Amino acid sequence: MNTRQLAELGQQLRVDSVRASAAAGSGHPTSSMSAADLMAVLLAKHLRYDFERPQHPGNDRFVLSKGHASPLLYSAYKAAGAINDTELLTFRKLGSRLEGHPTPRRLPWVETATGSLGQGLPVGVGIALAGKRLERTGYRVWVLCGDSELAEGSVWEAAEHAAYEHLDNLTLIVDVNRLGQRGPTRHGHDLDAYARRFHAFGWHPVEVDGHDVEDIDRAFAEARSTSGQPTVILARTLKGKGVASVQDREGLHGKPLPDADEAIVELGGVRDLRVQVQEPPATRMLHAVRTGHPELPRFEVGDEVATRDAYGQALAALGGARGDVVALDGEVGDSTRAEFFAKEHPERYFECYIAEQQMIGTAVGLAARDWTPYASTFAAFLTRAYDFVRMASVSGAGINVVGSHAGASIGQDGPSQMGLEDLAMFRAVYGSTVLYPCDANQTAKLVAAMADLDGIRYLRTSRGAGPVIYEPHEDFPVGGSKVLRASSDDRLTLVAAGVTVHEALKAAEALDAEGIQVRVVDLYSVKPVDRETLREAAEDTGCLITVEDHREEGGLGDAVLDAFLDGRPTPRLVRLAVRTMPGSASPEEQLHAAGIDAESITAAVRLLVENAVVR
Amino acid sequence: MNTRQLAELGQQLRVDSVRASAAAGSGHPTSSMSAADLMAVLLAKHLRYDFERPQHPGNDRFVLSKGHASPLLYSAYKAAGAINDTELLTFRKLGSRLEGHPTPRRLPWVETATGSLGQGLPVGVGIALAGKRLERTGYRVWVLCGDSELAEGSVWEAAEHAAYEHLDNLTLIVDVNRLGQRGPTRHGHDLDAYARRFHAFGWHPVEVDGHDVEDIDRAFAEARSTSGQPTVILARTLKGKGVASVQDREGLHGKPLPDADEAIVELGGVRDLRVQVQEPPATRMLHAVRTGHPELPRFEVGDEVATRDAYGQALAALGGARGDVVALDGEVGDSTRAEFFAKEHPERYFECYIAEQQMIGTAVGLAARDWTPYASTFAAFLTRAYDFVRMASVSGAGINVVGSHAGASIGQDGPSQMGLEDLAMFRAVYGSTVLYPCDANQTAKLVAAMADLDGIRYLRTSRGAGPVIYEPHEDFPVGGSKVLRASSDDRLTLVAAGVTVHEALKAAEALDAEGIQVRVVDLYSVKPVDRETLREAAEDTGCLITVEDHREEGGLGDAVLDAFLDGRPTPRLVRLAVRTMPGSASPEEQLHAAGIDAESITAAVRLLVENAVVR
Repeated sequence: MNTRQLAELGQQLRVDSVRASAAAGSGHPTSSMSAADLMAVLLAKHLRYDFERPQHPGNDRFVLSKGHASPLLYSAYKAAGAINDTELLTFRKLGSRLEGHPTPRRLPWVETATGSLGQGLPVGVGIALAGKRLERTGYRVWVLCGDSELAEGSVWEAAEHAAYEHLDNLTLIVDVNRLGQRGPTRHGHDLDAYARRFHAFGWHPVEVDGHDVEDIDRAFAEARSTSGQPTVILARTLKGKGVASVQDREGLHGKPLPDADEAIVELGGVRDLRVQVQEPPATRMLHAVRTGHPELPRFEVGDEVATRDAYGQALAALGGARGDVVALDGEVGDSTRAEFFAKEHPERYFECYIAEQQMIGTAVGLAARDWTPYASTFAAFLTRAYDFVRMASVSGAGINVVGSHAGASIGQDGPSQMGLEDLAMFRAVYGSTVLYPCDANQTAKLVAAMADLDGIRYLRTSRGAGPVIYEPHEDFPVGGSKVLRASSDDRLTLVAAGVTVHEALKAAEALDAEGIQVRVVDLYSVKPVDRETLREAAEDTGCLITVEDHREEGGLGDAVLDAFLDGRPTPRLVRLAVRTMPGSASPEEQLHAAGIDAESITAAVRLLVENAVVR
Repeated sequence: MNTRQLAELGQQLRVDSVRASAAAGSGHPTSSMSAADLMAVLLAKHLRYDFERPQHPGNDRFVLSKGHASPLLYSAYKAAGAINDTELLTFRKLGSRLEGHPTPRRLPWVETATGSLGQGLPVGVGIALAGKRLERTGYRVWVLCGDSELAEGSVWEAAEHAAYEHLDNLTLIVDVNRLGQRGPTRHGHDLDAYARRFHAFGWHPVEVDGHDVEDIDRAFAEARSTSGQPTVILARTLKGKGVASVQDREGLHGKPLPDADEAIVELGGVRDLRVQVQEPPATRMLHAVRTGHPELPRFEVGDEVATRDAYGQALAALGGARGDVVALDGEVGDSTRAEFFAKEHPERYFECYIAEQQMIGTAVGLAARDWTPYASTFAAFLTRAYDFVRMASVSGAGINVVGSHAGASIGQDGPSQMGLEDLAMFRAVYGSTVLYPCDANQTAKLVAAMADLDGIRYLRTSRGAGPVIYEPHEDFPVGGSKVLRASSDDRLTLVAAGVTVHEALKAAEALDAEGIQVRVVDLYSVKPVDRETLREAAEDTGCLITVEDHREEGGLGDAVLDAFLDGRPTPRLVRLAVRTMPGSASPEEQLHAAGIDAESITAAVRLLVENAVVR
């Protein structure tokens, strides 16, 4: 395409963005119009992509970080022949693939769901890492973002990561239209302000007039020929470009144009240019082995092993059997034991330093390229990445997340290091799986089982050593549980997971000596829960006491309810959980102070029995 | 103090850090030793602080962002005479004020809880903003952080915010000891790498030898005399400085020294220097009016008003009555309606741009200075700041957080913009309050009531307009609920909040026409819940159906359980919630697709009645 045609294509993308938003009665046409020329040049001259084969290993990858500019993306799809005009006008309607913000759950050409700003670059870094370190098929990653979102710290975590890894296959295009949702950005059209920042972070910055297609073309070519560092293209643009009534004006974010017909006339009318997007080069995908029978570590019953140790060993073994497994950690691999994997499979290990958002973003990027990531840090610090986890579920991404140092039982380090909200956080995520093993063999089995589940898989591990109680050959299906004690005389059921399983067993023994029988269930699968077993326990014993090293809301105590939600009779429920703000103390003191150790459980059961609350 | 004495003081802080960690059997002495000279010079020559009057309005504020270096902090307290040696050696023991990571819940000189890295600067920015924009008492804010934590994006959100606000009362001291927990940082001792980044972000960088007390002294003086921008002091240090067996070595993070006695000898033995910390200047605190009777907005029953609109109006009114109320927003004030406050009280409004972590960090900083902050953005994007919310609860900070655009009912924008996990997230936070009003008058009352609660207060608002159903004079105590329909023939109880209250009322009317009576409870206080009313409803009707525009886990459906956790009989429970991943659709279509609209509720009730699940 020549210059005139490129400019025409930009106008077409604007017109179609206006039309789609008008048809929807909502949307972000002005945010689309600012980036239309950037998109036109990218699509027509630089992107290599086969829309009929989105899985082509040589395809470039495009991420629209400013997901609200979806009308532009869909207009580009139309120009490329991937969708037709009729579908374009279904934008934002019930059942349409063309959602307000693009998601890969609906559209095969979308790499990751966007709409929470500042996430496109982190995920793009993950994809670029896959391309550079694992796949080596030569694809480029193009991320288009807005200027407002550069205020998000996650962008700078990603900038640091990309430069450190010399991701010259990554280009960030910033649509500097100077207007956020509410009003002007901090730096307006001061492109230099952004250039200084990116340059300091090790990037190659290029400033362009974002409405000059030749200038843009040169910049994209420069990005492609820059080696050793990622390039950022800072494009000066105008929001609503091309329509005087909205161009560069405040207060028009996220609204269809006041008069679409008039705007379309002003933009030169409806066009129907078709772009022949460049084919990706023929390339061979390095198919990683996706299945295999890992020789999982085996632990002797009675030995004292921390579940985090079992995690590290199992992951290293899984990595040996499966070439698709990769690991990431937030600079605490010596604590989470991700380092066991790093030592055996350094080429598939991604050190993310203390940047949890970037760690999850990288995992989502790797998953988008069909790798199977395990990302770990302290459970407490996963709260840092909750928005990334949430958006990963919108993407439908399959990622494994592992939080170590769960609960008050970590001991002296105190509450800042204690994961006490992680079960609640992961349970609330759509389609998630939440696992919380209590022993080393169980952990190993669950680590292997996680790999092939859908969606967000969360595993919670503990800092301290605990006894191995299961034989290495036992199975632990996701959605299952283990009944560790049961008799026909059980007066109630203790439901525990992780560290509290051992406390519950001790309590059950002590109560047994007093003539009080209780059932003990190890609810290692917190989501989904084992409905059968819980219902049976409810029928047999009438009362469930949940015991958890977690806040009382959203964890095990709430999870058991999942078994009784269809209107059937609900058992009596008692919840033992961490109700206070812990300080520093030994692990044993912490469990006691929280009222979740064997002694506290015993006392609680006695109280219920004495007051005849239970049968 | 002269140079020799300062160096001696540095050694004393090292020795005491080693001693405290040895007594505890855990802790981070090497991370303390690298920063000991920085701390010595700050304490002896630059900090102005009255340890007997931590509330003195003229006191400088010190934040130890690398909270794991708590032995250094406590050793400094000892040198300043604030604690004695006996207390120092209680470090990390049960009941001690000297926790593994410092918290203001225990110690009056601590401004904010740290231990989750990258949070000290964001909170420090909040305190510096209070000093510069609100209090104007001339105090300085000193933040000491590590080099590892500069990988956290939150640091760069804060860096941007501080420079933009010209916070020359803020100094960041970076202890560049080149070693993180697991190993070397990305930039090692390359101080220039950090200097370039901070300079690009608008800061004044100063590089120093962090073990040369004269060099440090000059740098601190330079920071104090720099105007118009914040200063960052990049100090080249050695982890474990002064003890050859640990100095600058990997693998020793977070461990007491192998031989403490020998190390103390090597450091020159135990000393007992006392520092006379400079007094703060006499200054007058501008006491903001903390109480007042706001003329809250009044809405007509039957009018259609969005609760976000009521929030904005009520907050503006509250700000008029109370001078301590301040508002913050993440660049969506036009959507959350925080802009109503901004227009009336611009001097107490803090635009945080799209940087949610920094927004909550700023709120915590303002709360540390006894202001009453209301921080708002889309509920979905508060997930970005979960770690900050969690740490705010560890601090015991009193902050109000408001999430708008809750639930699938926002409509076309799709799942990335829908707050669907926020109730779960905030419920799990220690000591939190979670409020979810359904009408404008209720919202206004709750906005006013929040101001004086303890801890984290969360209010959830809706995008769309809904009918006003309560009179302006009605009261809505926190922990209460409203029974909107009740009769002696109620077959079950619908428990709703926010948008689903209106759906439940419509359903109840439709069912009434069919001869089925149901109770309707508006559970606007999600935490704490109204136990009395729920228990009464359970006794009267035997079955509760919760209906919520939220994920099924951790929200209203789990919250009702809080009323039945003492082993008492639990009613039958049915949960209607958002179980699928929504796409784009109109608000009405979304509620229907999620199965939480009047029609879906009606159908669910009919099913239960027909199958005789309920009486």
